[in-house]
Amino acid sequence: MKNIVETKFYTIEEPIKFESGIEFSPITVAYETYGKLNDNKDNAILIIHALTGDAHAAGYKSENDKKPGWWDELIGENKAFDTNKYFIVCSNILGGCSGTTGPSSINPNTDKPYGLSFPVFTVEDTVKVQKKLLDYLGIKQLYSVSGGSMGGMQAIQFVISYPDYVKSAILIATTSRLSPQAIAFNAVGRNSIISDPNWNNGDYYDKAQKPDRGLSIARMIGHITYLCEEAMYNKFGRELQNKDHYDFNFDIDFQVESYLQHQGQIFVDRFDANSYLYITKAMDYFDPASKYGSLKNAFEKTSAKFLIISFNSDWLFPSYQAKEIVNTLMQLNKDVSYCEINSPCGHDAFLIEYDNQSKIIKSFLNNQIKGDSNE
Amino acid sequence: MKNIVETKFYTIEEPIKFESGIEFSPITVAYETYGKLNDNKDNAILIIHALTGDAHAAGYKSENDKKPGWWDELIGENKAFDTNKYFIVCSNILGGCSGTTGPSSINPNTDKPYGLSFPVFTVEDTVKVQKKLLDYLGIKQLYSVSGGSMGGMQAIQFVISYPDYVKSAILIATTSRLSPQAIAFNAVGRNSIISDPNWNNGDYYDKAQKPDRGLSIARMIGHITYLCEEAMYNKFGRELQNKDHYDFNFDIDFQVESYLQHQGQIFVDRFDANSYLYITKAMDYFDPASKYGSLKNAFEKTSAKFLIISFNSDWLFPSYQAKEIVNTLMQLNKDVSYCEINSPCGHDAFLIEYDNQSKIIKSFLNNQIKGDSNE
Repeated sequence: MKNIVETKFYTIEEPIKFESGIEFSPITVAYETYGKLNDNKDNAILIIHALTGDAHAAGYKSENDKKPGWWDELIGENKAFDTNKYFIVCSNILGGCSGTTGPSSINPNTDKPYGLSFPVFTVEDTVKVQKKLLDYLGIKQLYSVSGGSMGGMQAIQFVISYPDYVKSAILIATTSRLSPQAIAFNAVGRNSIISDPNWNNGDYYDKAQKPDRGLSIARMIGHITYLCEEAMYNKFGRELQNKDHYDFNFDIDFQVESYLQHQGQIFVDRFDANSYLYITKAMDYFDPASKYGSLKNAFEKTSAKFLIISFNSDWLFPSYQAKEIVNTLMQLNKDVSYCEINSPCGHDAFLIEYDNQSKIIKSFLNNQIKGDSNE
Repeated sequence: MKNIVETKFYTIEEPIKFESGIEFSPITVAYETYGKLNDNKDNAILIIHALTGDAHAAGYKSENDKKPGWWDELIGENKAFDTNKYFIVCSNILGGCSGTTGPSSINPNTDKPYGLSFPVFTVEDTVKVQKKLLDYLGIKQLYSVSGGSMGGMQAIQFVISYPDYVKSAILIATTSRLSPQAIAFNAVGRNSIISDPNWNNGDYYDKAQKPDRGLSIARMIGHITYLCEEAMYNKFGRELQNKDHYDFNFDIDFQVESYLQHQGQIFVDRFDANSYLYITKAMDYFDPASKYGSLKNAFEKTSAKFLIISFNSDWLFPSYQAKEIVNTLMQLNKDVSYCEINSPCGHDAFLIEYDNQSKIIKSFLNNQIKGDSNE
C-alpha cells in the first residue's frame, strides 16, 4: 500500500518585509508533512527543495500515482530522514509555481496574476516564509534543516537567520555563493525567456502562447550543468538517436540532443517562466560572505551541527565551494562533518546517489541524538 | 605603416560531391594570402579559422582599420607564421557568411538566398573546398596546415584527406571528435535559433526581423564554453556592473551578465544564423574514428609531422582529447610533438596566449626546415 500524502496550504496574512524593502502579503505556502511532531515539538526537520522542486518531497499523491515525491528515497519509515522519529516538513518556495504564492498567483488587489509586479526576493526572504510556516505548525526548534543545490543555499541562510532555532544543518551539493560561471548559465537562461516574444514582459498568463520556447532553452542549459562530461559519456556517448547514420539535416541526430529537447519540452508543462526568472535571480544574489562582511561573520552566531556533502563530479556547485564552508566553520570551531562522495553523476547526484547519502545522513542524525542525550 | 591586405575571391565552377551524396556548385571562396609563394610552390601554409572566423587572419583592411585580422599576432614578418618565409593562405569556411558560399548566398538558380536549401556539409567537405583553392593558387604541397578549435578539426581532416600533400600539421585546442557535452552546447544553441519565430525555417533574409534573439543566446552559450571558471573569476568575479548594490529587478546586475549580453548583441551584426546551424552541425558530425573504423586507421596514411597544442583550462576541447590524438600518432610511429600550455583562459587561449604559442610554433616550423634540408 502506498503512503498517500496531501499537500496543505497556509496563508501568511501579515506583511513580510523583503530584503528589497518591500512589504508583501498575503503569501500562501504549499507544504507537506511526513511523520508526527512530538510532544516537545522539537523533532521537526525542514527539507528544502532545489530550483524547480515542490513541496511533494515524499510519498504518493494517490494510489494510482506512479512517481513518489522527489526525495522519497531519503524520506520515510527507517529511511535517512526517518518518519518514525522525525516530523518532516517541506514547502514550495516563495515565488514558485506549485502552490506557494509567486508571479503566476492571482494578486488579490487586481484579480490578475502578479507577473512582473511580484517583488524580486532573496534567499533570506524565502527562509522568512518557511520560518512563518514552522511557527504556524508549532515547531519550537528544528532538529535539522536540509536541502540540496538551491535548497542547500536556503538551509545555509536558515541557520544564519535563525541561529538558535536550528540544531543541525545538512547541506548537500550546495554553495555559499554561485561562481560567475553559474551566474552566467542562469543569466543566459533568463535571457532566453525574456527574449521570447511570448514572454511579453511577464504578462502571458491569459495568452494562448506562453514563453515555452525560451523556458525550454533555459531548461536545456540547466540540464547540461546538472550532468557532467562523464555522466554524458556514460548516458549517451556520441550515440545516435534511433538511426545508424547522420541525417544531414537539422533534426535530432544524437541521443544527447534528444534527451535535452525532451527535458525542455516536459519542463514547460510543469513550470512557470516568471518563477524561473525570480528564483534564479535569488540564487545569483545569494552571497552571505558579501552581505555579512565575510563567511566567518555570517556563520559566527550559528549553533547548529553541520553535515556537508559534495560530489566530486559536480561542476555547478563544485566541491571547493563546499570546502570553503567547511574551512570557515572549522575556523569558527563549529561542529562540522564533511563528505565528498565519488559519483559520476555531476550535480544531479544529490537526486541519484542515494545509498551513500542515506548512510551518511542517517549516521549524522543518529549521532546528533546521542549527542543530545549526553547533554 | 599598416600591412594592408585584400580579401580575394575564387569561384569553383565544377560541382563538388559532398559527403551527403549531393553534388553542389558553384562555390565562391573568400580568401586572403600573406607572403609570397616560392618558385617551388611548396612554402605555403594553410591557416584555418574556427567556428565564426573569416579569411581575414592577418593585417589590416585599410589604413583606418583599427583591428587587425584574428591571428595577426601569429602571422607576419618574423612572427610564428613568418611571411618572410612562408606563403600563408586563409579562406572563409564553406557555409560561412564572410564571402564564401553559404546559406545566406544567392542561389543562382532562384536568385534568392539558399537558406535551408543549402546542403548540409561536413568537415571533409570544407577541406575539399580548401584543397580546390590551393590547387587554383598553384600550391604543389603544403608546408603546413594549422588551425585552432574547429580550424584544428579541419586541419586534422586535411591531413587525412590529402596525406601526401601536407608536410606538417599544427593542431591547436582541438579534438578528433566533440564530447557529448560539447554536442549538447551546440544543440542548445541551434535549438535557440530554430525556436526563434523570426528564423522562419531559415527563410528570413528579406525580412525586417532576423532571428537575432536566438542567435544571440547561442553565442552567449558559446562564450561560456570559450572561457572557463577560472577565467570568469579573473575577468569578472561576482562584481556588479556599474552599481554597488543589487537592483532587485531583471536588468543586468553582474559584470559577467553584461559581458555575455554584449557578446550576443555584437555577434548578430556579423554572423548569419543559418551559417551557425550548418557549421555547428559539421562540428558535431566530425568523428574520423567512427568514420574510418578507428583513429589509428584514420591517421594511418598520413606522412605529416604533427605539433599538437592544448591548454590545461580548456574544457570545451580538453587536453585529454589532444592526448588521444598524440597517443594514436605515437602508436603509428608518426612524428608528433605535443605541448600542453598552462593558461587560465580556457578554450579562448588559442586566441590570447600568443607568447608561448609563437615560440612553440616557430621552433616547430624551423625544425621542420632543418629536417627537410637533412633529407
